[in-house]
Amino acid sequence: MSRLRAGIVGGGRGAFIGAVHRIAAELDGEAQVVAGAMSSNPARARASAEAWGLARSYDSYEQMAALEAKRDDGIDFAIVATPNHLHLPVARAFLAAGTHVICDKPLAANLDQAHQLAKAAAASGALFALTHTYSGYPMVREARDWVASGRLGELRKVQVEYNQDWLREPVERAGNKQAAWRTDPAQAGVSCCVGDIGTHAHHLVEFITGRQVESILAELTSFVDGRQLDDDASMLLRLEGGVRGTLACSQIACGEANDLRIRLYGSKAGLEWRQQEPNALQVKPAGEAWAIHRVGDGYLGEAAARATRTPAGHPEGYLEAFANIYRDFMADVRRVAAGEPALGNYPGIEEGLRGLRFVQASVASSNQGAVWVAL
Amino acid sequence: MSRLRAGIVGGGRGAFIGAVHRIAAELDGEAQVVAGAMSSNPARARASAEAWGLARSYDSYEQMAALEAKRDDGIDFAIVATPNHLHLPVARAFLAAGTHVICDKPLAANLDQAHQLAKAAAASGALFALTHTYSGYPMVREARDWVASGRLGELRKVQVEYNQDWLREPVERAGNKQAAWRTDPAQAGVSCCVGDIGTHAHHLVEFITGRQVESILAELTSFVDGRQLDDDASMLLRLEGGVRGTLACSQIACGEANDLRIRLYGSKAGLEWRQQEPNALQVKPAGEAWAIHRVGDGYLGEAAARATRTPAGHPEGYLEAFANIYRDFMADVRRVAAGEPALGNYPGIEEGLRGLRFVQASVASSNQGAVWVAL
Amino acid sequence: MSRLRAGIVGGGRGAFIGAVHRIAAELDGEAQVVAGAMSSNPARARASAEAWGLARSYDSYEQMAALEAKRDDGIDFAIVATPNHLHLPVARAFLAAGTHVICDKPLAANLDQAHQLAKAAAASGALFALTHTYSGYPMVREARDWVASGRLGELRKVQVEYNQDWLREPVERAGNKQAAWRTDPAQAGVSCCVGDIGTHAHHLVEFITGRQVESILAELTSFVDGRQLDDDASMLLRLEGGVRGTLACSQIACGEANDLRIRLYGSKAGLEWRQQEPNALQVKPAGEAWAIHRVGDGYLGEAAARATRTPAGHPEGYLEAFANIYRDFMADVRRVAAGEPALGNYPGIEEGLRGLRFVQASVASSNQGAVWVAL
Amino acid sequence: MSRLRAGIVGGGRGAFIGAVHRIAAELDGEAQVVAGAMSSNPARARASAEAWGLARSYDSYEQMAALEAKRDDGIDFAIVATPNHLHLPVARAFLAAGTHVICDKPLAANLDQAHQLAKAAAASGALFALTHTYSGYPMVREARDWVASGRLGELRKVQVEYNQDWLREPVERAGNKQAAWRTDPAQAGVSCCVGDIGTHAHHLVEFITGRQVESILAELTSFVDGRQLDDDASMLLRLEGGVRGTLACSQIACGEANDLRIRLYGSKAGLEWRQQEPNALQVKPAGEAWAIHRVGDGYLGEAAARATRTPAGHPEGYLEAFANIYRDFMADVRRVAAGEPALGNYPGIEEGLRGLRFVQASVASSNQGAVWVAL
Repeated sequence: MSRLRAGIVGGGRGAFIGAVHRIAAELDGEAQVVAGAMSSNPARARASAEAWGLARSYDSYEQMAALEAKRDDGIDFAIVATPNHLHLPVARAFLAAGTHVICDKPLAANLDQAHQLAKAAAASGALFALTHTYSGYPMVREARDWVASGRLGELRKVQVEYNQDWLREPVERAGNKQAAWRTDPAQAGVSCCVGDIGTHAHHLVEFITGRQVESILAELTSFVDGRQLDDDASMLLRLEGGVRGTLACSQIACGEANDLRIRLYGSKAGLEWRQQEPNALQVKPAGEAWAIHRVGDGYLGEAAARATRTPAGHPEGYLEAFANIYRDFMADVRRVAAGEPALGNYPGIEEGLRGLRFVQASVASSNQGAVWVAL
Repeated sequence: MSRLRAGIVGGGRGAFIGAVHRIAAELDGEAQVVAGAMSSNPARARASAEAWGLARSYDSYEQMAALEAKRDDGIDFAIVATPNHLHLPVARAFLAAGTHVICDKPLAANLDQAHQLAKAAAASGALFALTHTYSGYPMVREARDWVASGRLGELRKVQVEYNQDWLREPVERAGNKQAAWRTDPAQAGVSCCVGDIGTHAHHLVEFITGRQVESILAELTSFVDGRQLDDDASMLLRLEGGVRGTLACSQIACGEANDLRIRLYGSKAGLEWRQQEPNALQVKPAGEAWAIHRVGDGYLGEAAARATRTPAGHPEGYLEAFANIYRDFMADVRRVAAGEPALGNYPGIEEGLRGLRFVQASVASSNQGAVWVAL
Repeated sequence: MSRLRAGIVGGGRGAFIGAVHRIAAELDGEAQVVAGAMSSNPARARASAEAWGLARSYDSYEQMAALEAKRDDGIDFAIVATPNHLHLPVARAFLAAGTHVICDKPLAANLDQAHQLAKAAAASGALFALTHTYSGYPMVREARDWVASGRLGELRKVQVEYNQDWLREPVERAGNKQAAWRTDPAQAGVSCCVGDIGTHAHHLVEFITGRQVESILAELTSFVDGRQLDDDASMLLRLEGGVRGTLACSQIACGEANDLRIRLYGSKAGLEWRQQEPNALQVKPAGEAWAIHRVGDGYLGEAAARATRTPAGHPEGYLEAFANIYRDFMADVRRVAAGEPALGNYPGIEEGLRGLRFVQASVASSNQGAVWVAL
Repeated sequence: MSRLRAGIVGGGRGAFIGAVHRIAAELDGEAQVVAGAMSSNPARARASAEAWGLARSYDSYEQMAALEAKRDDGIDFAIVATPNHLHLPVARAFLAAGTHVICDKPLAANLDQAHQLAKAAAASGALFALTHTYSGYPMVREARDWVASGRLGELRKVQVEYNQDWLREPVERAGNKQAAWRTDPAQAGVSCCVGDIGTHAHHLVEFITGRQVESILAELTSFVDGRQLDDDASMLLRLEGGVRGTLACSQIACGEANDLRIRLYGSKAGLEWRQQEPNALQVKPAGEAWAIHRVGDGYLGEAAARATRTPAGHPEGYLEAFANIYRDFMADVRRVAAGEPALGNYPGIEEGLRGLRFVQASVASSNQGAVWVAL
C-alpha cells in the first residue's frame, strides 16, 4: 500500500503542534507529509519545510491549494495547523479545490466563521476532520462502548474537568506569544480558557455519553489582573435524557499540566478516566470491587483494541491518540478514493459547530450572572 | 490525670455512630463513657448500656440530665448521638443543667431549631462542640495551615466533592431504615444529600480556607424514581475575597464510598486531599515538582503533629480523626474546670448555624432553577 | 459485659508502643488498663501510671505479678511492652501466676530464651499472644482467605518487603536511644533490621500463605559505617510446596517509613497489599481486569468483615489493626474464664519461635556468604 | 535535512516488533524504511514489504546487504529484527558491507556468538546499536542524572523487577509460537525468562547507576509443568562500590503485563520509577516530602528534556522511548557521515556482551544451587 501524501499549512518552527500533526499523520506508515505552506513568512516557511525535508514548499496556502490539486502526485489531504482565525480561509481553499482537510480544533474563530466553513465543506464533498485528540485514546473509546452498551445502566451524572496552570501569571505581558494571542479578544475570540480547553472537556462528554449537552450554566473568571478573557470556568450541565453534570476548566490551577479527567455515574456502575494515566479505565460496579481495565488486555472491546498498537503493558500516549484520529480519517480518504462511502469515525463539522456553540453559550451565561443557556 | 466521665444519649445497638463516639471519646484514655440514655425504648436503652458496661442507664435524657448534674461523680459532658430532630431538646436539657455537650452534626433539624439551640448554648455558658469529623484529620489541619500561612499565595479556586452510592436504588422502600428517615422530609427536613454530606464538604471548605462561602448556586436532583428529597447536588460557590469554587455531592455515585476530596488552587501552589487516603497531602507548587506530604513526618506543622498519635508510616484513619475533635473539646472541658478560658479549637454553634444556612440556601437556589443565593 | 482489667509492664513515658497497647486494648470498650509497672525506675513508673490514671502502680513486675494474682479485682491479663531481653522474665512471672499474657514481638531476645518462654507457657496453661500487628489488618485477613480458598490457584511466588529509613545515618551515636539499643548486639541480639522488621515480613508471608518458610538464603549488610548489626537484608525464600519468594527489608531506604508490602502470585491470580494503603487489596486474576477490593464492602469474607469497625469508606489504620489482635486475644480470655476452649486466632508461642529461628537462620546464612539455611 | 534510508531484516507480518522498529525509526521524520528482507519465506517477505510500501524487497538478507551497499541511494543503516539466533549472521553481513546496524536485544543467542559479533563490529568500523528500549524513557535518563550528580548521596541499594504473566500456562503447547521458541533451549538458548526480560532489568540497573553488576546469586524456576527453561527468577546482586541489590523477574506473575520497576536508595535520597507510569519519577529525599517529578517540566535535566517531544502534561510511552534510542543512534549515523566522531549515546556491543554474561551467570548460579557467580 502506497503512502498517502499530505500537505501542511502552518505548524512552522517553534509551533509544537506542527510536529505533532506530522508524527500523528506518519506514525502508521500510511502517509507522508510532502508539501507545506508552513508560515506566512516565506523565508520561515522555506526553512521549516527544509528542516522537515518536504518535497515542495509554498509561500501561501492559496498557491499550495491550487497547484497541488493540479499535480498527478499532489497531496491527498491538507493539514490545517494555523492560528484559529485562519482555519476558515485555509480550509475553504482546499475544500474548494476538492482536497480533503484535517484541521485543528476549534473549527473556526467564531460561530459565524464556523457556519461558513460548514457550508464550504458541504459544498465541496471532500472530507473534513477535526482533531479532538482525546477521543483518540483507546480507553476513551472503551468508555464510550460501556455507556452505549448499557453496562452503566441508566446514565445519571457526569463530572468532567480540564485543569492547567500555564496562565497562572500574566505571562502574556512577559513575552509568551501563545499566551498573548490566546488572551487577546481580537485574536482568540470571546473566550480563552473555555475556548481552548473547555471545548475539549465538552467534546469528551458528548463523545463518551453519546448525548448532547442541552444547556449550560457557567461562571467564567479572570483571576489574573488585567486579563481580558477568562482563565477559569465552572459550569453546570444538563444533557439529553435528564443526565446532570459539572464541568470545570482552569488555566490557573497551580501544578496541573493537562489534567483532563472524567467520571460517569449510571444506575449500575461508574467509570473514571484521566488523561495523565490514559491506559487505565476504572470501572466501579455497584456493590462490587472496582476494576482497573487496561489498554491491550483481551477483555476490552473492539474500538479500544483497534486504537492500540502494542501488546498489553506498553504504555501509549498523546501522540498515539492523535494518530488514531488520523488513522480513522485516512481510512476514509482511501475509502473515498476507492469509490466507497466514508465512515466518518472522527470528529468533524458537526462537532466543531457544537464546540463553538458551547463556547458562546458559556460566555453568554456568565455575562448574565450564571443563568441557563441552551446550546 | 483522672478520666473524664461522659454520658451518651442515643447511639444504641445497631447505630454505628454510637460506637464511633465511644471509641473517639475514650481513645486517648482521657475519658470513659459511664452513663447513657441510649434509646427511647427503655428496654433497648438498658440492653445497650449493659452491653457497654455503663455504670448508669437512664430511661430518658431528661432524667439523665437532671440526675447526673446532681451527682458528685456525675458526667463531665454529654454526647448527643440521636436523630437530628432530637438534637435541640437533648442538647438544651444538658446545657440548661450546665453540662458541656458534644453533638453530632447537623446542629439541628432545621435553621429555626438551630437558632434555639444557639440561644440555649449562649445562655448556658457550658461548652458546645459539633463533630464535623473530617476537620480532625491531621492533613486537613496541615492544609489549613498552608492556606493561612500564605504558602498558596492568593487563594483563587476550590473544588470539593463528596460522593457516595448507598442511595443509588430505592432502598428506603426495601427496609433500609437509615435510608427511610433520610429521604423522608418529615424526619430529615428539606434535604437528604446536601444535608447529610454536602454540609461536610461545605464545612471542609470553610475550615481549610478560613473563609466563608458568601453565596451559592445549586442544582439538586432526585435521580431515583419516587424519592422526595435530593440524592445529588452540583453547586457553584463564591467565597470571601473573590475565591470561586465548585461543590458536588452525590449519594447515587456508583462505586464511591465516602469519596470526600478537596483541591485548592492559589497563585503560588495547589493542594489536594482525599479522605480515602487521608495520610497524604499533595502539594503542587507552581513550576516545581509535586510534593507528597505524609502524616507523622517532621516537616509538618504543629497542628498536624498534634493530631497524630503514631510515628510516620503508621496509617491513621477515621476513628483517630473523630478522636481529635474529642481531644480538643475535652481539653477545653478540663480547662474550664480549672478556671481557664476555653480555646474553642473545634466546630461549634457558629459552624452548625452556617451548615444549616448552607442547606437552606442550596434548596432555595435549586427551587428557583439554580440562582445565586447568599448564605 | 464488664470490662476486662489489664496490667502493663513497660511502655512508660516516651515509649510510643505503650500508648499503642493501651489504645488497642481499650478501643472496643472491652478492657481497661488498671495497673502497671511501667518502668524499672520507680519514680518514672509512678509518674507514667499517674499520667494514665492507673488505679495501681508497682515498682516491679515481680511484685505486680504476685499481688495482682491475689486480688479479687486483679488483672485479667498482662501486657508486656518492655525491651526484648525482658520478655522472658516478665512473661514468665505472669504465666507462673496463672495470668494470661500478651507480649510485643519478638518472643524473646534470642532462640534460647524463646524456648524457655515456650516451656513456661506450656507449663502455665495461661494464654499467650504475640502482637504481630500486621496480621490484624482486615485486608491481610482477606488475602489469607483468598489463598486458603484456592482462588489464587496453585501458589507459586511471594515477594515481600519492609522498608524504613530511620537508621540511614549513625543516629545511634547522636543520642537516639531506640537506635542505640537496636544496633547494640548486647541488647538487640544477633540482628537489628531482620530482627526488628524482617520478622514482620516473614510472619506476614506465613500468615497469608498458610505455609512455612522451609529455608532461606540471606545477605545482611551494614551500610552505615561503624554499625555492628545489619541495617539491610535481601533474601531468597523457599516455602512448603515449591513456593518461591524474595524478602527485602531495610532501615536505610531513604524516604520510606513503614513500607511493608506483599505480592503473591498463583496459577490463577495475583494479590497485592501495602500497609501504607491498608484498606485496599489488589486482586489480579489471569486474563481479567484488576480488581480493587476495599475494606467494609459486602463482597469481602467473614474474617475481613469481623476485623472492621466502620462502614465502607471510613479508612481504618494501624491502631485498629493492633486492636484486632487484642480483640481476638481477649475473646479467648473471656472464653477461658467461661470454661470454654480457647480458639487461638492470634499469633503466639509457635509464631514467636519461628520468628527467632528465621532471624538466626538469616544471620547464619549471611555469615557463610549467603547459603541456604533451613528454618 | 533529508531523511535517512533504513532497511529492515525480519519483522514481517505478525511480528509486533517489526512495526515498533518502523515507527521508532520514522517517528521524528528523520528516516524512512525503504528496503527489507522481512522474512526468510520469499513470498511472505514480499507481501510484508508491499504492505509497508517499501521501495525494495529482498529474498535474503545477504542479497540485501550486498546490493544496498552498492546503490547510490542505498540504505544508511540496517535494522535487525529477526529471532535471536540470526542476529550474528545478519548483523555481520551488514557490518562487513560497512553498513551501520541497529539490532534487537539480546546481542546474540549466546555468549560465543556475541563475541563473534563484537569482533565483526570492531573490524567493520560501522556503528552498532542495541535497542534496550527502557533506557529511552525520559525519566529513566533523569534517574541516571540523579545518581551521577550525587543527589542520592552514596548509592547503597537497588531493587529491580520485571514481572509478566503471559507464560503462566503451558501456552507453548497450545500453539503460541512466541512461547514455543522462547521455551525451547534449541532456539532460545540457556534461559527463557532471564534472557528475555531479566536482561532488561539488568541493563536498567547498570544504565541508571552507572555501575556494573559484579556478581549475582540466582534461583531460576520453571513453575509450569514440563517447561524446560526458567519462567521465573530471583536474584541477589552485588554492584561495584559495595552497592547491594535484588532482581526479580517472572513470566508467571498473574495479572502483570510489563511491570518493570526500579527503586534506588542512596544515603541522601531514594528514587522510584515504573514503566507502567513512565512519565513520573518519585524522588524521596531523607527527611523531606516525596517529590513527583514529571515529564516535560522545567526543572528536569537536559537528558530528560531532550528525550521528550511534547510539552508537560502530554503522556508519552513505549514507542517514544524506543524512538529515543533510534534518535541517538541516527544522530551518530549523520555525524559519522559528516566526518565527525560518533558519540555512542545508546546501548551497543559492550552492553550486549554484559547482558549475555548476566544470563549465563544466572543460569550457572542457579544450577549450582544459588551461589555467587562473577559477571
